[in-house]
Formats: sequence, C-alpha cells, structure tokens
Amino acid sequence: MRALCSAGAGIGHDSAMATTEPIAPRGRPRPRVVVVGAGFGGLNAALGLIGSGAEVTVVDRDNYHGFWPLLYQVATAGLAPEDIAHPIRSIFAGRPDVTVRHAAVTGIDLERRVVAVDRGDPLEYDYLVLAPGSATADFDIPGVAEHAFALKTLADAVHLRNHVLECFERADAQPEKVPGLLTVVLVGGGPTGVEMAGALAELIGTNLALDFPHLEVSDARVVLVEALDHLLGGFSRASQEEALRVLRTKGVEVLLEAPLAEVRADGVLLADGRAVVASTVVWTAGVRANPLAELLPGDRARNGTVPVGADLSLPGRPEVFVVGDMALVDGGEGRPLPQLAQVAIQGGRHVARVIRSRLAGAPAPAFRYHNHGIMATIGRRAAVAELPGRIALRGTVGWLAWLVVHLVFLIGFRNRVVVLVNWAWNYITWDRASRVIMVDRQ
Amino acid sequence: MRALCSAGAGIGHDSAMATTEPIAPRGRPRPRVVVVGAGFGGLNAALGLIGSGAEVTVVDRDNYHGFWPLLYQVATAGLAPEDIAHPIRSIFAGRPDVTVRHAAVTGIDLERRVVAVDRGDPLEYDYLVLAPGSATADFDIPGVAEHAFALKTLADAVHLRNHVLECFERADAQPEKVPGLLTVVLVGGGPTGVEMAGALAELIGTNLALDFPHLEVSDARVVLVEALDHLLGGFSRASQEEALRVLRTKGVEVLLEAPLAEVRADGVLLADGRAVVASTVVWTAGVRANPLAELLPGDRARNGTVPVGADLSLPGRPEVFVVGDMALVDGGEGRPLPQLAQVAIQGGRHVARVIRSRLAGAPAPAFRYHNHGIMATIGRRAAVAELPGRIALRGTVGWLAWLVVHLVFLIGFRNRVVVLVNWAWNYITWDRASRVIMVDRQ
Repeated sequence: MRALCSAGAGIGHDSAMATTEPIAPRGRPRPRVVVVGAGFGGLNAALGLIGSGAEVTVVDRDNYHGFWPLLYQVATAGLAPEDIAHPIRSIFAGRPDVTVRHAAVTGIDLERRVVAVDRGDPLEYDYLVLAPGSATADFDIPGVAEHAFALKTLADAVHLRNHVLECFERADAQPEKVPGLLTVVLVGGGPTGVEMAGALAELIGTNLALDFPHLEVSDARVVLVEALDHLLGGFSRASQEEALRVLRTKGVEVLLEAPLAEVRADGVLLADGRAVVASTVVWTAGVRANPLAELLPGDRARNGTVPVGADLSLPGRPEVFVVGDMALVDGGEGRPLPQLAQVAIQGGRHVARVIRSRLAGAPAPAFRYHNHGIMATIGRRAAVAELPGRIALRGTVGWLAWLVVHLVFLIGFRNRVVVLVNWAWNYITWDRASRVIMVDRQ
Repeated sequence: MRALCSAGAGIGHDSAMATTEPIAPRGRPRPRVVVVGAGFGGLNAALGLIGSGAEVTVVDRDNYHGFWPLLYQVATAGLAPEDIAHPIRSIFAGRPDVTVRHAAVTGIDLERRVVAVDRGDPLEYDYLVLAPGSATADFDIPGVAEHAFALKTLADAVHLRNHVLECFERADAQPEKVPGLLTVVLVGGGPTGVEMAGALAELIGTNLALDFPHLEVSDARVVLVEALDHLLGGFSRASQEEALRVLRTKGVEVLLEAPLAEVRADGVLLADGRAVVASTVVWTAGVRANPLAELLPGDRARNGTVPVGADLSLPGRPEVFVVGDMALVDGGEGRPLPQLAQVAIQGGRHVARVIRSRLAGAPAPAFRYHNHGIMATIGRRAAVAELPGRIALRGTVGWLAWLVVHLVFLIGFRNRVVVLVNWAWNYITWDRASRVIMVDRQ
C-alpha cells in the first residue's frame, strides 16, 4: 500500500510557482489540491484538474456522488436510492491524478495548510477547494428537528418513503380512522416542496389508491405550506401561477401567506393559529451553508454562507476556494447567486481553471455565472422551465425539457439507462416500482 | 374505510362445503383463506386462489416479495435492493379477491381458527396457508449471532455490502496494514456460499482493484469454509468439482473438511485449531424453519421444519397447510424435499389446487414435486446447472441458462428490465454500479 501524498511535501503555491515552466517536471514535487465534497461543485473542480499536473485528493463523507435534483423521486418511490448515487471512485477510476478519501473533515488549519479528517493521515494542500454543500436550516422554528422529516440525504429520502407507506399500511390495518394519519404537510414552496407535492399527489392518487382499495383516498391530504404569497420564488409570476394551478388540479392544498409557528408530533401550527393535523411533516423550507463553514475565519452571511472574491477564493487566502451552496457569490446588483446545481457546477469548473492558470503563471479570470435557466417539475407532463432570453416552457414541453436536462446531467451511463427505464415504466404504467418499505430489521 | 373480512364470519370448511354447488353464490359468505408469507410459496398459493370464490388475505411482515436467489448480488453491489423487491400490493392490485395485510404474525389459534397479528384485527380463517420461509440456524456455534453477517434479508445484504466497502475504505486511509481487514470468510459451501464467493472475488479483483489503486489487491482474501469434503451438496460430483475448480481459479481459498469451532470478533477458529483472521465473516451455512413453526403443535424435525401430509396439510388439521422452507415434505425414500424456491412455488400452487378442490367438493390430489433442476452461478460465464434426465450444463451455457431462468422467474416486468440492464452493464463494463455505502446518518 502506498501512503497518500507520498510524492513529497511542502511545495508552496506562492509566486515562485507563477512561472511559465512546464508544470511538475520530472523529479519535482507536484502541487497538491484537496477538494472537500464530491457534489456538483467538488466533482467538477476535480474533473477540471485532471491532467493539470496537480495531485488531487477528493474527500467526501459519502462514497458516492448524489444527484440531489432527483432525491424527491426516491422519497416518492419512483427511483431506487442507487439510481441517483454514483460511486466517487468509479468516476475517477484510471485517473492517477485523483485520489479519493472516504472521510469526514474534522478541522481546517489555514496557516499550516492541512485538512484534518476522521480517518487516515491529515491532508496537506497547496490549494484547497471547499465544496461541502448545504445543510437544513430550521429558522429556529420549534419542533422542526424533532418532528419534521428532512430531505437532504439518501437516508432521509428512504426514511420518508418508508414512513409514508407505513402510514398507509397502518390506516389499512385499523378499522377506525386516525386523524391526520394520511396527511402529509410539506413546509416550503420552493422547487423541492413543489416537486414533492406533485409527486406525492400522483403517488397517492394513482398507485396507493390501487394498492389500498379498502381506504378512501379522499382521506389522504397533501398540504403545501408557504410563508410568502407565491410558490417558486425566483421564477416568473406566470410560472408561479402555473405551478399553483397545476398543484391544485392535482388535489394539493396549497396554503400561501401561511408562516409556520411550530412543528408538533401531531402536525403543524401556523402563525395565524390554524393547525394541520398530520402524521408526516416534511421540511423543505430552509437551506443554510454546511457547518464546515464555521471552521473558517471571517464574515458569514445570515444563512452561514462564506463571502468569496471574484475568483471564488477566500478573502486573504488566495489558495482557498469555496464553491457551491457554501459560497456567497455576488451575482451583481448586490444579490447573491442562488444555491443551484448550475452555480456549483460552473463554480467548480471555474476554480479548476483558476488553479490551472496559477500553476501556469497566467492571470486567472474572474468568475462569471451563465444562467442556463431554472426548472421545476410539478408532475406527469407538467413542469415549468425558464430559459435565458425570457423563454418559458410549461406543460408537456417544459416536462420533456426537464427530463432531457436531468438525464443528460445524471452521472454515469448506467444510471441514465436505469433511470430512463424507471421513468418510462412509471410513465406508461402509472406504476412506481420502488414503493418498498426497507426496514433495518435483520 | 371498509373493515377487513366484512363479508361475514363463521363459515366452516367442513363437509357441508363439499358440495358441487357453485362457490360463494350471491348473499352467501365466502370462505376465507389466510396466507402467511408472500415469498415463493405464499405468493403462488394466493395467486392460485384468485377466482376461486375464496376471500384471500396475504399477511407479510414486509411489504414486498423478495427474490432471494439474487440476494447475493445485492450484497456484492451488482444490484440495488429495490431491483429484487416487488411490492406485494402491486402484485394483487385490481384483484378484489385478495387483501394484503402488512403485519407480523404473533399467534395462531388452531382451535378458534384465528391468526393474531401485531397490527389491526386478528384474521379469522377457514383455510390457513403457512409459508413464512426460513431463518438462520447457527448450529449452536459460538459467536455466529454476535460476529457473523447473515444473508437472509435486504437489510442483511445492504449491511454486508456497506461493511465490505467500508473495510476497503479503511484500509485505503490507513498507511499501516491491519491484519484481516480485507479478508472475507464465507462459512458454508452451499449455493449461497459458492455464489457469494465467486461474486466477491470478481468484485474485488475487478472493481475494487480499480477503485483502490493504492491498495494491493493481493492483500484481499476470500476464504470459503465448508465442513464436508465437497461444495454444493445435492449437486453431482462433476458439478461440485467444477465449482471448486472455478472458485480456485478466481483466487478463492476453499477450505474443505474444515468444520467451524467459533466465530470471533477478529475472524474464525476452525475445529482443527487453525484460525483465519478476518474483518468480515458471512454465515451461509445454516437454515432452519421460521420461528413461527414453534406456534404449531406436534412434531418438528431437527431443523424446525413441520412434517406435513401428502396434500401438504398439517396432520389432524386438514384446513391448515404448510408450504416452502417451513414444511418437511417427504420426497420419497424417506428423504425430505430440499429447501428450494421450486419446492415452495410448486407447494403453493398445489395448496391452491387442494383448496379449490375442497371448495368444489372434489377430491384433492396428493403433492408431487417435479424436479426442474438445480443451478448455481459461480461468476462471470460460469455456472453449474443440473436438469432432469441427467442433463448437466456448465461454463457459459450453464451461466446463460441461469440468467434466463432467473430473469423469467423475477416478479414484475420492470424488475426484469432493470435487472437485465444492470447485468448487461456489469457484463460489458465489468462495473458494479451499486457499490455505494448507504449509511443511515441523516
């Protein structure tokens, strides 16, 4: 077994590197880049550094890259968890430039340029790319952590799927009705809440209605609760209204201007005093920066994100970059860029270009975000997509665009084929084949 | 919501039913059949009773039918758990004859003809079909329950997959070698042990060797331990030797005539005093009847199986049937039928025919097992199959036969397509896409 980072230690990133010499000539130690997180940002940074002459180490606490835009489909039994997870090691197999470390980061020493991990030797770096993503923010609303389901990880999605199916099983076994047993409250009208609401309404209205012929499906409720007066903040008014209309057609109860006061064991309490009794509450409202941000010095935005410079580096630390959901990037007019996959992808690619430029002694370009559009699916043949140039796609066309984009960006050919088979199956048969309750009983 | 079994209560199964009258005429209560277990036996019993006039209730503690012959592929990252699990309710969707109850059986009252469950009302029956399958037997060998991985459930398979991948991750992160960290001991040379050994050797030799370029794969060992002097008991001598030869070619260390003394936290101790240090011990050696057998009166075989009559009914209880792994069926010459999927499938179908005959007042036929052959795969293009008439298939032909048979018997068209895509992918690319470590951290 070869020790990690055995190629030598101690090379600086400073101006001595800023020459036009060939990178990492024979016998000379190669610059070391540590990339924290193998999500959209970290993955693209590492991929962009292949062949740059740098020794790249990718650290992630999971051994897979998760395709989170489809997580709601795992939670609603349309896909298996493995369909949206791709082993990080297989992405970099046969790439001697990139080493993968399956470990959690426990500390960052910016002075000594070392990342401490919970497994194996600490990782020394010349360049550090921090792309650990986001975490759930509960906005200090009581009960969120205790009683609401999160939807950030594969385990979250499987827990939620199990729980919803279990509630239907319990209702089916009990002769008397239990209030709220078949009610799902989704808190937050962003893309995740809207996509979950549409998918849940379809799961219940088609599959579970067939699966549980002895239950009255009208007892089941999907309630989407949003504090503002519109869904899908960031989309155009027309798309927001389209989403609202389609969800209501599907039987989703959408409560707008309904800020939450508390999540309880038996449901939610709204600020205006209304209560919704529900056995399932899903929190999709809040996102904050990954807690790793707290390991860094300097300012932090209210949501924990770390302000970065024009090249995405940390102020005063040109060798440290932050990309993706943990970064606060000025998007012009004083507004930060949104926490979207595209921002992370482009940020990761940009940081790879900056590091390559530095290694080559060339000036690094500033980051410019190219808006390729935003989209959210609301269900079968219903989606809203807003492309640059004020092009808006809705209904079937929007949905087809959504399918193509998500298939193209899904990592790995096999994942694409299996997801396509599952989608085609779901579409043709109205079936959702993954509705299995996967308990941990041995 | 309609109460279960609302069609009336108290109809007997006795000779008053044994008429040639049309079954369940209008206004007359229908006979109730309770089927415990939705494995191969229970599923086929329930399917065979559709249209018989009986009200069938299928009880299972899981909400899916598991295709257990492919469980080892989940454990070795070739398939996702959802690929081999099919929701029970979707099998019976649109079949008003069959009600599904997701619950565990907690008691059986043969006098009052009631099955108690942990959820919902007890289930009254006129006919009872017990098909709960098998459980792991440890033959009182110390340490099996504490230190060995079982391989009976989807959770077992995922735990084992996670653990083996974790061991490789740990070895990769540590500069010093830990003895046995990359050693897997499989106890038991039956089909499961042989299939696991072949699949593990391929997983390690191809995928993990690529995934972990800094590890020496020669440090990894797969050791198959068998108490007898041959593998694959029940197969012909030629097949047994073929399996041994192929496994050894793949680098599996096969220890024959090596009964186990103890499983320890750090490996296994053999009866002859030899020890194998291993971080992973998998117990595939012992199968006994499901513990539900203990709820029944009367004799029990040493492995807990319940002796049944020629029609598969319980002695003295013509309305109670036992099929599958929990039944002890005389296979002729005083030898019991093996615990195989085919025996369970044919048993389930037979019991449906017997109940139909009774309902129609016709004499019930005795059970006759038709041996369709046995097969075990040893890896890529290597399998042994023994068909009736002394036809033996080996190598690529045996492997193709294995593929076709397993695809045909896999429940659900979608499962077949996804499994086929995964197999084709694995075959063409040597990849195993499900090697994700699915932790329960939220």
